[in-house]
Parts: sequence; structure tokens; C-alpha cells
Amino acid sequence: MMAMYWAFVILTLAVVGHQSQADSKTPRKPRQTESDRPNIIMILADDMGYGDIASYGHPTQEYGPVDVMAENGLRFTQAYSSDSVCSPSRAALLTGRLPVRLGVWGETHRVFLPWLTTGLPRSETTIAEALKIQNYTTGMVGKWHLGINQNTKTDGFHLPTNHGFDFVGHIIPFGGSYSCDNTGRYDNTPDPTKCFLYYRDEIVQQPYYQENLTTLFVNDTVDFIRRNKDGPFFYYFAMMHPHAPLFSSAQFKGSSARGAYGDNINELSWAVGTIIKELEELEIAKETLVVFMSDHGPHLEYCLDAGDPGIFRGFKSNSFEGGYRVPLISYWPGVITPGVSNEIFSALDLFSIFVDLADGEMPTDVEHDGVNDVSVLLGKEPSTRDFIFFYNRDILFAVRSGKYKLHFFTQADKTPEEFADVCLPAGYPSGHYFDCNKKSVSEECVTEHDPPLIFDLDADPTESWPLDPSKFDALIESVQNLISDHEAGLIRAPPLMDTENRDMIPCCNETTNCYCNYP
Amino acid sequence: MMAMYWAFVILTLAVVGHQSQADSKTPRKPRQTESDRPNIIMILADDMGYGDIASYGHPTQEYGPVDVMAENGLRFTQAYSSDSVCSPSRAALLTGRLPVRLGVWGETHRVFLPWLTTGLPRSETTIAEALKIQNYTTGMVGKWHLGINQNTKTDGFHLPTNHGFDFVGHIIPFGGSYSCDNTGRYDNTPDPTKCFLYYRDEIVQQPYYQENLTTLFVNDTVDFIRRNKDGPFFYYFAMMHPHAPLFSSAQFKGSSARGAYGDNINELSWAVGTIIKELEELEIAKETLVVFMSDHGPHLEYCLDAGDPGIFRGFKSNSFEGGYRVPLISYWPGVITPGVSNEIFSALDLFSIFVDLADGEMPTDVEHDGVNDVSVLLGKEPSTRDFIFFYNRDILFAVRSGKYKLHFFTQADKTPEEFADVCLPAGYPSGHYFDCNKKSVSEECVTEHDPPLIFDLDADPTESWPLDPSKFDALIESVQNLISDHEAGLIRAPPLMDTENRDMIPCCNETTNCYCNYP
Repeated sequence: MMAMYWAFVILTLAVVGHQSQADSKTPRKPRQTESDRPNIIMILADDMGYGDIASYGHPTQEYGPVDVMAENGLRFTQAYSSDSVCSPSRAALLTGRLPVRLGVWGETHRVFLPWLTTGLPRSETTIAEALKIQNYTTGMVGKWHLGINQNTKTDGFHLPTNHGFDFVGHIIPFGGSYSCDNTGRYDNTPDPTKCFLYYRDEIVQQPYYQENLTTLFVNDTVDFIRRNKDGPFFYYFAMMHPHAPLFSSAQFKGSSARGAYGDNINELSWAVGTIIKELEELEIAKETLVVFMSDHGPHLEYCLDAGDPGIFRGFKSNSFEGGYRVPLISYWPGVITPGVSNEIFSALDLFSIFVDLADGEMPTDVEHDGVNDVSVLLGKEPSTRDFIFFYNRDILFAVRSGKYKLHFFTQADKTPEEFADVCLPAGYPSGHYFDCNKKSVSEECVTEHDPPLIFDLDADPTESWPLDPSKFDALIESVQNLISDHEAGLIRAPPLMDTENRDMIPCCNETTNCYCNYP
Repeated sequence: MMAMYWAFVILTLAVVGHQSQADSKTPRKPRQTESDRPNIIMILADDMGYGDIASYGHPTQEYGPVDVMAENGLRFTQAYSSDSVCSPSRAALLTGRLPVRLGVWGETHRVFLPWLTTGLPRSETTIAEALKIQNYTTGMVGKWHLGINQNTKTDGFHLPTNHGFDFVGHIIPFGGSYSCDNTGRYDNTPDPTKCFLYYRDEIVQQPYYQENLTTLFVNDTVDFIRRNKDGPFFYYFAMMHPHAPLFSSAQFKGSSARGAYGDNINELSWAVGTIIKELEELEIAKETLVVFMSDHGPHLEYCLDAGDPGIFRGFKSNSFEGGYRVPLISYWPGVITPGVSNEIFSALDLFSIFVDLADGEMPTDVEHDGVNDVSVLLGKEPSTRDFIFFYNRDILFAVRSGKYKLHFFTQADKTPEEFADVCLPAGYPSGHYFDCNKKSVSEECVTEHDPPLIFDLDADPTESWPLDPSKFDALIESVQNLISDHEAGLIRAPPLMDTENRDMIPCCNETTNCYCNYP
């Protein structure tokens, strides 16, 4: 088995070698100082909870390179994702705009699926596009999840090459699919045809070997950094770890006391450490900002295959803190002083921060939702961001204003009995996922609160004890004004996730029933 | 108000000056090397939960000196208190023996109260006594909670001077009492006569000024360290923070975003930092082991006046991890390499470890429950301790064996509705404390499990998903054998907490109705 595994690794590396791409050849603006116009590496974890790593307090997860990054960087305690599920969170991160403006939501689905013909609109400006204008070389690898094709099974209309990425290595355009798991652990019927690994715009493996993915992503990343060490570059590493189904390479299987989920975190941590080590070896660590963040909270309905929201209530798909509050570490030796930041921060802010660091100008054609808190990300100044919007699809469920959070709608907590129904025996997930997510605006799952439920997140971060709203008239009014202002300037895009065409599922080769392993 | 406060501080400091004691004058064994026979400072927090400080993952608690200690020391993730309530936990820590052997339990009470005539039996050998034999100078300050008087209101029969402490500074022999709070925050009827501050064996203030206590304790501690800088010494700093009722000195009031509880943690953290700074200034930091630990989990029934157990289930008074799993930091510059330890550790082990560090021999007249894991506390070796006993009074509720925990009995979880009944509105505690604690072995509160509930604490630290016991026959049998062996060697002492005599409540001066403020 091990021999086969290594044969496969070698084969795949050979494939990568063959397909290596010419990155952007645009001449670059000369660097002014070491810290001027840094390289930027954005590492995004998938479904990782606030409490999932040792430096955020997990008691059994091994201390690893990501914790060393936290120790030598700035660890945020009040960072928020831009949505509580994958596609909208990623779309908003890359554009600095709320999903409701982008149309990245739907009544029937909340993420892009291989049988949808839509994706992040190409008219939107991504960070990659904004930084290309500033002569940054751009690259990405990993989980895209913002659309594949539009008119044919192979047009790749929505792929990252059409969103400003010069280099696109191995990518999973759909996302980690439970259908790809053939161990029988999940009760979905495995459907390997949904499991396609692309390299740039082409399927290179269908179904993919899950265990190997992180290694491929890291190899692409290291190669990209080496080729572009003279910078400046922007690189987006969208991990598939630690999203279920859980898999990891042989090196990390059994590495964690915590089990398969912990193995995932250990491999994720290794990937982070490998990138940082490469920057050090190339002597460009002081010229490179590395940001590590999760796309949203953990998917608790996967029981022991899910992460941990720490002390927070709620999880992926809902508007409690557990859905939105995520680990965030910024790292830039010589510029960022190691420490802990309790400043409020949103993933929506990264667009404007990265544009600023690249000496760019914000696009003025559309509304952006970020705050240019570059000094917050670098640990230099207090936050100027004093509010967070918690959308659930296109509905504004809650608003944080200063230390207070006002819930106008809440999705029902899953009861212990409902969890037990899914997670017994022994914490293995057994279906019934997203019970309320699938019908998140239906009456049985959503409660409207008028007056809103109000929590003091500083004193009561677990959102346990609502305050007496009659004592907060001024707060409620000011938040209602904030919402009115927001809605007055809000151009809602129609939802992109409600039309399906099963004939559009990508297939590498019809004659092999979509089974391929190129070259 | 401020002027009065400072006047009081100055007055009290003068008192301390007058009453300073001659510490032990026994000639000392010459030190062999810097790290040989270190000074030992044991700092115990009161009711502090696993998740209460920034380095253990709390999202809004300020990063402070205790976190710097953690960063430069060894932070344990699998450390256990020796009981889940105050008096038995402290008794067991100081003797290395389970409370059931000491009689430190009761049917009607679980802690020593001022109207009990019992205390930690003087026949028991405390760490202080064991280290005195090794020519250590011993001292303590803070919350004793192991008995006061036996035959008269003033005999001080159970006080720490009779348990091996040369120096005893300001102490609260009873413990933080809700009766001492006169703010109306708690629904107990304030009874200031229960609030006596001793200096050595005498009441110096009744009722005491709560806000000032930590300052007094720290001043005593700094003075002791200065007087004994040539060492070796053993010092036990039993904080009253962050036990409710919550109070803190003017310097820390309003210092925390988290509120009064966070102010408490900040003052606790300042106290820890002040001690470490003093060691550095005296240039004895490298000759001193400092251990910081909590006595057990947080008392969640106090709502926002309580701490946070992190991700763990349960709290003070019960046998889930939230009751027993505590923060532990060991710190010894030059000897302990900074890091995180996932080794299993028990407060019961400290007795034998400290005796070993002092080159002493363990007393052989009685059974001890500790493991000499000095190399674990110093981060040099894996743990040899592979089990933990979770007693509730004199009943063995659960046993951890390796990564598994077997619950033979569980105390009922407090339901969200029961918590809401106590904690609404807004998280202010409103009585009904210890509903199940007060009747912890009664049928309505305790469930027996046969076969036991089994959890894998590495994979499922939150004790959420029991394993199928039919697959763990060998484990169950081995734990049953462990229990049989334990019980075969167990000499149970009769409970000490079931006899009351209200006439024994200490009183500084009958003619002033027990109101005093000496000198």
C-alpha cells in the first residue's frame, strides 16, 4: 500500500512538472523598502472552528506549526468570516462585498454545486484582479467553490483563471464532497463522478485521491513562491482541510490523539509551516504578509468529524458566534509584533487592506463592505470597524454594534436530542445534516425577535443571557438606523443558486464514464 | 471615596509592618546547584475555569502577566484538580491524599464552614510540614478553608500555623463568602460577621474590606520572598480570585471588557506577574519553581459572575471534565522549556513532586495518591500517571483510564431552563445555587450507569458521545480491577462536615458585635 501511495505521489508530481504555467510577465514596480508592497499569502481553512487549534485553546489538538505562526504573529480573538457557509464566504472575502450584493445565495441551495451553471459573476473584481493592476503576480490552489462552467461541460467559464489568477494549480472547483468518500462513513451514496481535480482549467483526475490533495496543493504553492520570490505576488491557498469527509496523507494518518479530525488539523498545520519555512529559506519572510483564517465555523452536525467552535454558541450555517467567529492569524516578521488582538475584524476587510498594501486604489464602480483596517491587521491601531452584519442567505439575521449583538432572527438551536439522533453511537455522523439550514427561513426553524435579543459579547461571549431590551432603546434605534442606511445603499443581486442542470456535471471523458487519471 | 480607600491601604500596610513574624530560623542545607532544591511557590486560583484566561482560549479576557507566565512556562492541557469543590481539593493538594481518606467531606456540607468545629486533621502531613523537615522555610497567605477552631472561638486549632506554615500572613480561614457581599447582588442576606480577615492566628478585621484583599496578600508575599531570598522556601498563595462575590481593587475595577469577572482575572494576573517580577529583581527566578493552578472548575450557577470551563461539560461540584479539568502552568526559567504539555497530571501529584525537589522522603505511615511526576511537571518526560479518580463526596463517580473516561454515576446536567431560572435576566445570579450539589447522592440528581458511560477524552473532550460499552469489555474490567485494588487499600475516614455549632463562629470582640479593625 505504501509503495503504491508513493508511486502515485511521484506520478502526480511529474504531472505537475509537465503542466507548469508561465506566470504573469508584466514588469514590476520596483520595491521601495522591505515592507513596502509585501507579498501576500492568504491561507483559508475550510469549516475550521474557533476552538480547533492549540493556540485557541483546544485541549487535545497537538501544538503545531500553525501555533508557532500564532505565537510569532498576531492572533485575533474577534475576527469574523463574511458568511457562515462556504461559497458566499469565499465570494465575499475575494470581492470585499456582501454575498447579497453578489447574488451568491439561493432559496434551494446555499453553495455552488457542480450541476449549477452559475458562479461568482465575472463582472465582480476579485482581490486577484485588483492586485494584478498593481503588477502583482497572482496565484491560487485548493478549493474554489465559486462556480465551474456556464454553457458547456468544459467551458470553465467561472474558474479562477477568469477571475484574475495568473497561476492556478491543483484546484477542486466544487469543494470537499461527501460523495467522494467511499469508506461508508457517511450515509450519502458515494458518487465519484462529482470528485474532480483540476489543474488550471482541465480535469486531471476523476475521481480524485483525497489523501493526496494537501500535498499537491503545498507543492504547487512552494513552486509558485520560488518562481516569484522577487515579488510582489498575491497567493490564495484555499485548503480543503479540515472539512469532512476527513482524509489526510499517510504521513498524518494517526498523528493526532484527537483522531481523524486532529490528523487533518496536523496536516493543515504542516502545510502552513511548510509555506513559512519556504519564505524563510528564500529570505523573503520579511517581505511577505501571511494571513491564516477559517471560512466560517465548524459543521457540528458532523459530530466528531466536525471541528469545535470553542466556547461559542452555534455553528456553520447560522448567525450565532459559532457560525461566524473564526481564528485569524496575521504574520509578517519585522512588521507585526507578536501578540493577541482583541480588535473586531471582518474577512470583508481583507480586500481593501490588500489593495492598500499593494498601493492600489479601491474600485469605485460598486459598493464595498470592508473597512480599510490595515493597521488593525498589522496590530498597530485600534479597530475602526464597530459593526458586523450577520446574514443568513439574503436576510439580515443579526448585527453586532460595538460590544452588543442584536438578533432580529435566530435559527433554532439543534437540541441535544436532535444532535443525539445524528451523532449516536460514538459521535459518528449519520445524516440529517443541515436540518434547519435547508429551510432556514421557514417558520419551524426561524424565530423573529421584536424587540431584538441583545447580548453583551464582551461579558457574555457565549450568547447565553439576553439583556433587558427596554433598557437599550438608544442602541436599538442606532442599529436600526445603521440597517436603514445599509439597505438604502444595497443593490440586491438575484440569487444564483436556484437553477439546476444535471447535464452540466463536469466529466473528463464520457467514454470512460468520467474516470480519468492524466496525463 | 478614593481618598478613604488609600487611607485604608496605608493603614493596613502599617498593620502588616507591626505584625511581621520571625520565620523559621533553622539552619539550612547548603545549595548544591542553582536548580537544586528550588524555592517553590504554589499559586492556587479559586473557582477559575479551564477556559478563563487568554492563553487557554478565552476570547475577551485581556492577555496579561499570567499569560506571559504561560508563554514562558509549560501550559498543561490535561491537568486535574483533586476534587471539584474547595475544601477537599485544597486538603488533597496539601497532603497528596484523596479527601475520602482525610474525612474532608460530608453529607450535609461539602466545605468547612465557620460553624463547624472540624478541619483538616492535624495528624495529616502537609507539604509545608514535609518541606520543613527538609529545612525549607514555609509560608502562606490567602484562603485557607481547612478549618478554624475546635473547642473555643479563639483556639485556632485548625489554622495553618498548626499545619507546618512558619509564616502565615493575611488569611481568610473560611473562604470567599457570599454573605460578605453587601451590594445586594446575591440574594443571601449579608452577614458581615462571617467575614473575618486573620493575620496569622488573630482576627484583624471583621468584616473585611473585600476589595483590598489581593493587595494585602501580594504585599505579604513580596515581603516573605524578600526575607527568604536565600532560600529554600515553600510558599502557598491561595488566592480568593476569581471566586464570587466578585470584587477587585480600584486599580482593576473596570479594567476588563469582560466585566467584574474579568477585572478579577486581571487582578489575579497582576498578582502572578508581581511575584514573578519580584523573583527576577531578586535574581532568584532561576532558583524558583512557580506553579499556577485552579482548585477546580467554575461555579456556573453564578452565571456571568462565574468563570468558563472552556469547551468542557460540567462545572464545580460535579465529575464531568468541567468540574475537574483546570489550567496548570509550571514556570522555572532555565529549567522548564516553554511549551504546551498534553500529559495527564493531577494536583494530588504535587506533594510527592515537591518533596522530591526538596530531596525529601515520602512519609510512609499513610497511603498517598500522588505519582511522583516531577519530570512531567518540568516537561522532561511523558506522564506515568494513567488514571484519574473523580470523587463526588465519598463516592467514586468516574475514572479516567488512559484516554477513556468511565462514568459509573453522573450528576444531572443543569438544563438550559434551570440555568435560565437562575441567570435571567442578563446573567445576574439569582439564587438556587447547587441544586444538585446539595443532594448530590439523592435519586433525583444522580444517575447510575451500568455498564458505565464511556467517553474517549482525546477525540471527544466535551464528553458528548458515549462509546458502545459492549466493545470495551477489557477496558471496563481493567478499570473495575483498578477500583477494587484502590478500595482494598482505602481507609475511609469518617466525614468531618456534618456537625455544626453556630456558637463557634469566630468573633473578634463580643462587645463590638464582632466589628473590628485592628491594630
